[in-house]
Amino acid sequence: MYRPQIKVCDCTIRDGGLMNNSHFSVETVRKVFQACCAAGIDIVELGYRNSKNMFSPEKYGAWRFCDEEMLRKVVGDQKNPDVKIAVMQDAHKADAVDILPKSESVVDIIRVATYVKDIDKAIALANSATEKGYEATINIMAISHCLERELDEALAQIENETSVIACYIVDSFGSLYSEDVDYLVNKYSRYLKSKEIGAHFHNQQQLAYANTIEAIIKNSNYLDGTLFGLGRAAGNCPTELLIGFLKNPKYDVRPLLGIIGSEILPMQKQITWGYNIPYMLSGMLNIHPKEALALMDLPDDDPLKTDFVGFYETITAETDS
Amino acid sequence: MYRPQIKVCDCTIRDGGLMNNSHFSVETVRKVFQACCAAGIDIVELGYRNSKNMFSPEKYGAWRFCDEEMLRKVVGDQKNPDVKIAVMQDAHKADAVDILPKSESVVDIIRVATYVKDIDKAIALANSATEKGYEATINIMAISHCLERELDEALAQIENETSVIACYIVDSFGSLYSEDVDYLVNKYSRYLKSKEIGAHFHNQQQLAYANTIEAIIKNSNYLDGTLFGLGRAAGNCPTELLIGFLKNPKYDVRPLLGIIGSEILPMQKQITWGYNIPYMLSGMLNIHPKEALALMDLPDDDPLKTDFVGFYETITAETDS
Repeated sequence: MYRPQIKVCDCTIRDGGLMNNSHFSVETVRKVFQACCAAGIDIVELGYRNSKNMFSPEKYGAWRFCDEEMLRKVVGDQKNPDVKIAVMQDAHKADAVDILPKSESVVDIIRVATYVKDIDKAIALANSATEKGYEATINIMAISHCLERELDEALAQIENETSVIACYIVDSFGSLYSEDVDYLVNKYSRYLKSKEIGAHFHNQQQLAYANTIEAIIKNSNYLDGTLFGLGRAAGNCPTELLIGFLKNPKYDVRPLLGIIGSEILPMQKQITWGYNIPYMLSGMLNIHPKEALALMDLPDDDPLKTDFVGFYETITAETDS
Repeated sequence: MYRPQIKVCDCTIRDGGLMNNSHFSVETVRKVFQACCAAGIDIVELGYRNSKNMFSPEKYGAWRFCDEEMLRKVVGDQKNPDVKIAVMQDAHKADAVDILPKSESVVDIIRVATYVKDIDKAIALANSATEKGYEATINIMAISHCLERELDEALAQIENETSVIACYIVDSFGSLYSEDVDYLVNKYSRYLKSKEIGAHFHNQQQLAYANTIEAIIKNSNYLDGTLFGLGRAAGNCPTELLIGFLKNPKYDVRPLLGIIGSEILPMQKQITWGYNIPYMLSGMLNIHPKEALALMDLPDDDPLKTDFVGFYETITAETDS
């Protein structure tokens, strides 16, 4: 038995772009998009629509900006009406003027990522998007660092001041356990009577997929994944596992298997994501993975790279107060 | 708050030995053992005590047999009374005569692994071990293939005919979801009034750690893990994650971090374990990973190795009836 309200969003290009400054070839993005369409994925997020004033186009690839002409190279002329295209705007790094009227865009959904402190910026961006004809979501990042009172207030605002379709729990640091997911989905449900609840989990503690299942059980219907988990630090809930779990007969895991073999696995030569001790420690300690990412970036022959005890001492010393 | 009844068993050398025919150097096994002792691990499983009539000592390393003299090289003269030493016997590949009287052995616990069909063999081995002075456990493998009626009968027998300390749920194929874990721990609890329940999960679907947490919530107290998840196919619940989760102040993750960096990660050059699409598919389809292991053994430049769609078609064709 399946729940038809469930929508799977594949974020491979967007979240994976955090590991390579969004430098994917048009050909790769097109193949990923086509595989997701063939697999019956509901929403494909093709990158950020962030501001070129805040991200240098010299440093960052096309998928940090998702100009319409680039998106059209991927989507082609015959847009599949069953697959929605999403782009993300960071509340503190994006500008509403970069969103065209819906009639001029192939984008369907603007997903606004925000820290809870920036909720008013996020609401302004989301409302601008819905006024222009898009669907919008608000994705509350770093949820494990939110003060309870601020999160309560933000959720009440989202319910009362926006017409977003969904509000996401974003476990940026990969530190949530299933009981935390329960607690948060229940909290979101109490506030968000007219919105769906979204689940976006990171895999620092190998819990992204398990936490997504827990969110499904608790009635979350918007579910994020990435192919082979490609994404920041330890990555995300693998879309192929999620599609294997869900029972909706429209889903087909095979196109995802194909694209993982041909396009995603070869990226492991350039990008290191997935379970690793530095990421695991940042998840366990509920901190941003930036120190772990820096450690993983060291050359393989640098002994610091596998001095995990030293790394642990350093990051716990920094978090003592 | 922690539950003092919880016992963590590190199976790195035993389960990891399924990936290299138990060929670890004495030095490596000694370092793993010492790290586990320093971390406060309750039980360290150093390998199999299987029959040399069924496993060739030419093909298999010392840790498939765990002769006493080899164990003493690892444990040394000053045995730590807080750390129990376990070896595993396969019900269908081991012999009770290979177990010395307890007074002549450094081993504390004989863990008997069995398919449900071999339960009478397992009970005979376990009872032989307890009569010789050891603690014993029975670990029911391939639990996801057990017929319900046979499992019920086996559990009743274990309760009534043995004095094992624990009976394990062994998810050999990595196919259980949290609701299956709930169901099985509840079933075990109904039958095993005088025994503890053990949890040994594989990571084919990235659920080994999450399922272990689920088992803990349902009152399972014997918990298996391996360092960095080293074990058959996608491997096991990582011991370092489990120690990070448990609250007993005697546990210290740092010695595990050290040994992972110095001994376990370098093994990745020879052994491929962890999440991979062939393993994921065998977990999703609830089948033995033998075809996946064969695929992963192909040379890297063999195009079959990443033809995951072809692999999927093959293994699903084979399971059609």
